[in-house]
Amino acid sequence: MTKSFGSDNHAGTHPAVLRAIVDANNGDAVAYGADPWTERATAELRRLSGAAGKVYLVLNGSGANVLGLGLLLARHEAVICAESAHINTDECGAAERILGTKLLTVPAPGGKLTPELIAGRLSGRGDEHFAQPGVVAITQSTEVGTCYSLAELGAIRAFCADNGLRVFMDGARLANAAAYLGCTLAELAEHADVLSFGGTKNGAMGAEAVIVMHPGDSVTAPYLRKQHMQLSSKMRFLAAQFIALLDGELWLRNARHANAMASRLAAGLSGMPDVEIVHPVESDAVFARLHPRHVAELQRDWTFHVWDEATSVVRLMTAFDTQEGDIDDFLAAIAAVTGARVA
Amino acid sequence: MTKSFGSDNHAGTHPAVLRAIVDANNGDAVAYGADPWTERATAELRRLSGAAGKVYLVLNGSGANVLGLGLLLARHEAVICAESAHINTDECGAAERILGTKLLTVPAPGGKLTPELIAGRLSGRGDEHFAQPGVVAITQSTEVGTCYSLAELGAIRAFCADNGLRVFMDGARLANAAAYLGCTLAELAEHADVLSFGGTKNGAMGAEAVIVMHPGDSVTAPYLRKQHMQLSSKMRFLAAQFIALLDGELWLRNARHANAMASRLAAGLSGMPDVEIVHPVESDAVFARLHPRHVAELQRDWTFHVWDEATSVVRLMTAFDTQEGDIDDFLAAIAAVTGARVA
Amino acid sequence: MTKSFGSDNHAGTHPAVLRAIVDANNGDAVAYGADPWTERATAELRRLSGAAGKVYLVLNGSGANVLGLGLLLARHEAVICAESAHINTDECGAAERILGTKLLTVPAPGGKLTPELIAGRLSGRGDEHFAQPGVVAITQSTEVGTCYSLAELGAIRAFCADNGLRVFMDGARLANAAAYLGCTLAELAEHADVLSFGGTKNGAMGAEAVIVMHPGDSVTAPYLRKQHMQLSSKMRFLAAQFIALLDGELWLRNARHANAMASRLAAGLSGMPDVEIVHPVESDAVFARLHPRHVAELQRDWTFHVWDEATSVVRLMTAFDTQEGDIDDFLAAIAAVTGARVA
Amino acid sequence: MTKSFGSDNHAGTHPAVLRAIVDANNGDAVAYGADPWTERATAELRRLSGAAGKVYLVLNGSGANVLGLGLLLARHEAVICAESAHINTDECGAAERILGTKLLTVPAPGGKLTPELIAGRLSGRGDEHFAQPGVVAITQSTEVGTCYSLAELGAIRAFCADNGLRVFMDGARLANAAAYLGCTLAELAEHADVLSFGGTKNGAMGAEAVIVMHPGDSVTAPYLRKQHMQLSSKMRFLAAQFIALLDGELWLRNARHANAMASRLAAGLSGMPDVEIVHPVESDAVFARLHPRHVAELQRDWTFHVWDEATSVVRLMTAFDTQEGDIDDFLAAIAAVTGARVA
Repeated sequence: MTKSFGSDNHAGTHPAVLRAIVDANNGDAVAYGADPWTERATAELRRLSGAAGKVYLVLNGSGANVLGLGLLLARHEAVICAESAHINTDECGAAERILGTKLLTVPAPGGKLTPELIAGRLSGRGDEHFAQPGVVAITQSTEVGTCYSLAELGAIRAFCADNGLRVFMDGARLANAAAYLGCTLAELAEHADVLSFGGTKNGAMGAEAVIVMHPGDSVTAPYLRKQHMQLSSKMRFLAAQFIALLDGELWLRNARHANAMASRLAAGLSGMPDVEIVHPVESDAVFARLHPRHVAELQRDWTFHVWDEATSVVRLMTAFDTQEGDIDDFLAAIAAVTGARVA
Repeated sequence: MTKSFGSDNHAGTHPAVLRAIVDANNGDAVAYGADPWTERATAELRRLSGAAGKVYLVLNGSGANVLGLGLLLARHEAVICAESAHINTDECGAAERILGTKLLTVPAPGGKLTPELIAGRLSGRGDEHFAQPGVVAITQSTEVGTCYSLAELGAIRAFCADNGLRVFMDGARLANAAAYLGCTLAELAEHADVLSFGGTKNGAMGAEAVIVMHPGDSVTAPYLRKQHMQLSSKMRFLAAQFIALLDGELWLRNARHANAMASRLAAGLSGMPDVEIVHPVESDAVFARLHPRHVAELQRDWTFHVWDEATSVVRLMTAFDTQEGDIDDFLAAIAAVTGARVA
Repeated sequence: MTKSFGSDNHAGTHPAVLRAIVDANNGDAVAYGADPWTERATAELRRLSGAAGKVYLVLNGSGANVLGLGLLLARHEAVICAESAHINTDECGAAERILGTKLLTVPAPGGKLTPELIAGRLSGRGDEHFAQPGVVAITQSTEVGTCYSLAELGAIRAFCADNGLRVFMDGARLANAAAYLGCTLAELAEHADVLSFGGTKNGAMGAEAVIVMHPGDSVTAPYLRKQHMQLSSKMRFLAAQFIALLDGELWLRNARHANAMASRLAAGLSGMPDVEIVHPVESDAVFARLHPRHVAELQRDWTFHVWDEATSVVRLMTAFDTQEGDIDDFLAAIAAVTGARVA
Repeated sequence: MTKSFGSDNHAGTHPAVLRAIVDANNGDAVAYGADPWTERATAELRRLSGAAGKVYLVLNGSGANVLGLGLLLARHEAVICAESAHINTDECGAAERILGTKLLTVPAPGGKLTPELIAGRLSGRGDEHFAQPGVVAITQSTEVGTCYSLAELGAIRAFCADNGLRVFMDGARLANAAAYLGCTLAELAEHADVLSFGGTKNGAMGAEAVIVMHPGDSVTAPYLRKQHMQLSSKMRFLAAQFIALLDGELWLRNARHANAMASRLAAGLSGMPDVEIVHPVESDAVFARLHPRHVAELQRDWTFHVWDEATSVVRLMTAFDTQEGDIDDFLAAIAAVTGARVA
């Protein structure tokens, strides 16, 4: 079978993560996180992110997003986010269902909010008839594979601080952003009040962390995590996954590798006729426009998603385990289909 | 360290489950359950339970309970359950938070509802001022380690059918009930509209199944599972756990073993002065009254929960990996503390 | 038709209230409360209650209760209340549905909570598995017609302050309590963080006030009122009702009258054989045990509710417009049915 | 004071409505709708709308919208509506908060949805990651004063029937649409599954009706109305308002009058330089573009809303009690400000 370019969660579990899970299966451990693995993983995540609050391990990305938003939202408040945000388009309305919040969406070119775009959603504040934004949710790296620069994050952060808005950062692919920007986790985290740090798309089996930057925002977290059904009983097996990812910066190496594979793919595509790369390639995704006929032909042997049927844009994702050979084979297949000459 | 009697989720993962997880880590797989492991696990669970509806794998017990209830409740309806039910006492109010439902609780001796107890909660039906029960939630085996007999389940089922009530069965420890009753999963499942089948307390790393008996109740399930943040991306690793538990009836052997260890413990305790077993021992739990002083002494070396401070009743749980020697050591310790002579 | 003893909301609107409504129908007024009537009514309610926060007019009693609780509850918190509380028994589960909160109920003799009863519901605080009480809800006067003394309220208040709990007072019949205790609204209000002040059962057509004692708790109120569908567009007509009730202390006179009628009824009943008054008569309700046969006979000509079928206890309510002659006629009818001699 | 053009709810209560309220204040009546006024009003509303289901009186427009949507939505479903819909822009996120639903908004020119616009929101049906539309919400007359023709309604209805979608019609100004189209209530209602019929903007003091066309959709209505805090205790006073409006088709006469006043205003404006009418005037609203400087000058003496600051479009609303003289005075003022010559 050919390597999937369908999603970074089509990949399995990184061998080191699996080893850590196996190693954690050693006798009894107190349940629900009162175990040494959880202590170690969360302490390390706090250290790396510079969080003064606490870190909460959860079961998946939607769980991390909804918990993170819930920690920051007052009961009546709404969320400003990009129209393309995962919480808006890919979670079946979980934020509305679970939090009862409204998402005030903004068309955001390249998946990125800006102070100007946010400002456009602030009319009606103080008027009881209008939904009241309390949180701005940004995604780093974005749904279309781009990354906010630290300067862009800083500008959003400053704008939000000036306007009484909290910042939630959906970091399902935060590792890829850190790898692209060459920055630390702390340099990203300081621009958020609460952020998620995704393990699953980075080589974990299924584990995400919610990082709370300020102690005051941690107060409700244990209870909301439980109410949101995100508290794992045999927590050590979530924690072990993060221990493995953090050990020797495996998370960063995995992200760098996936990013490099996406760059290799983009480089190969950039020379091809009838192929247009539609977003800057800054993480593990390549968004490209191909002829619908070429898409159909390629899908016979290769797995990837059509992102936008109307414009015939496809999303090609790499992962920690994508090999150079996989890229080259895929490029050859695309070349064959499109009639391009492989570089 | 001594074996924990604190909970069946203090135990780790059964080696066969872990092996199945490792085996599943084999190349790519489509995410979110469109993989052969999930197909196999859910097909087998449907077969075993006799479900005409579908089976949904979820991430933990609260997730299974809230999803199961949500599938059966009309938007305005309430749930009748035992005061001691896990959904009422141990899930931080998740059912109320996520479903907006009211729990109409009934003091239930031995943790078991009866038609009479349920009937006592039916006053006010049809009156818009009163919460309208739509679902009866029972737990099998119960929070205090007892099991509904098939006849008791049948009586509840018939009463509910006659009274327009749906039945949800919290089966976090369903395996232990099947082992105790010597019945099939299908013989238990036929008394419910939706039930959960717990893997985690039975040797899984963290996996539960929601079994929908009637096709009509499956319609909303995929969407509610997603909204409830219970959809795993790398689903094959949940499915693999069930595959291992179902293979060669490991789930039943694990449950039988844990039950046998509880029986051995109960037998050893029954002769001791100053120790009173307060509930029939019908699964993997022994509830016993000890002198508070004895409790305190034992807790120095042993892990277990005080269930009720006021009456000094403790809960002693066994697991799939509890050894006869663990029981005997624990009994010896209790005997030493209470001054009993070991049988 | 005989006077209804079924409820204080079987009565119509007090003529002075109706006049105020008619008077307010004078040209245009800005909608949603930015009108002089609302300004006047809420300012006067603030003054009378000593509130440093604001006052919000709402449309009915459930609306007042759910909004009041919502202002005090953190997103994850639960409410401690008497089992007999209106929010628990008579609002179809609105608090759970709208707020997602759990009601931690306490059997409360005479409908009244005490520090001891509240304390019994505080186990498990700080443990994420248990619902976390954040608010204590008391009803003044209670569902069974009794009143908390100022000392009893003070004791609850002090206990709650010591234990990090906020106090909500359901004052659907607060006027009756003030009349009974001979105290001011402020003397009652100072024991709560948020309270409702009921107009409807006191002679209004349909208007309730939510009084927020501390400014900080007002921040979310306008938005939650709107989200809870409790914001009236032609608000002046709600405000006019309160203006009439507050003018010349009509609210107090109405309550005193209703209370006096209940006392007259109780006095008449107290001498009768086969009639037992089961709760102290401290507001506008008399709870009495009659023979089921007598109940049935009386219900042919008179309107009242059977409160508890099992014990054959009925609730007899007076209102602002109950006349002495109504009481005497009703007593005569009861005497005729029970064979008593009228005093 | 000059007549307000700010909103049709700046007007007071029609004298006939007020008289009906006064007349209803006649002795006792059973609470919560079991009274002859409610019986009469709801029976008449059923007859006029041709509803086979029941009619529920509620307290305000948001209450009607949220209840109506709640009756039609499955627990997990989302709503398709125009971006400009009241439920999206003017209710502070009530639908999301109370129902936990997501609003899938569509930019709708002239405030009107079409089958094509609805179709554009149907991608992702059957995929658990995407919000699943279950209800289409339309507003008649729309937020910008236009009306769907019966043919347009029929086309939407047919499209929804073909696509498994239910139709909710927000009829806060349904009377104005009936007046404009010259059709019956039943001819409008047949295109919806549930609709609201607004009294408040039509001359009521504060009363709306939720009309359920099919009996099956009525089952949950009484309970949801109570949970949504929309059940009035002294219901007769809501019912009396509808009785007055329905008597001699006062509702239609009021709507015709308001519409005629808007037409007169539009006619007067249409000749003016520097004034542009931006939407067809088909109900009681005129949307016009004026110079910001003219707007500011006019607002010194006249009350109206700036609808869109950016384009300097204002909304001018008439009401049942707007007089020809009011229109003429206002036109004269606008002419004076804009330098137009009055026709």
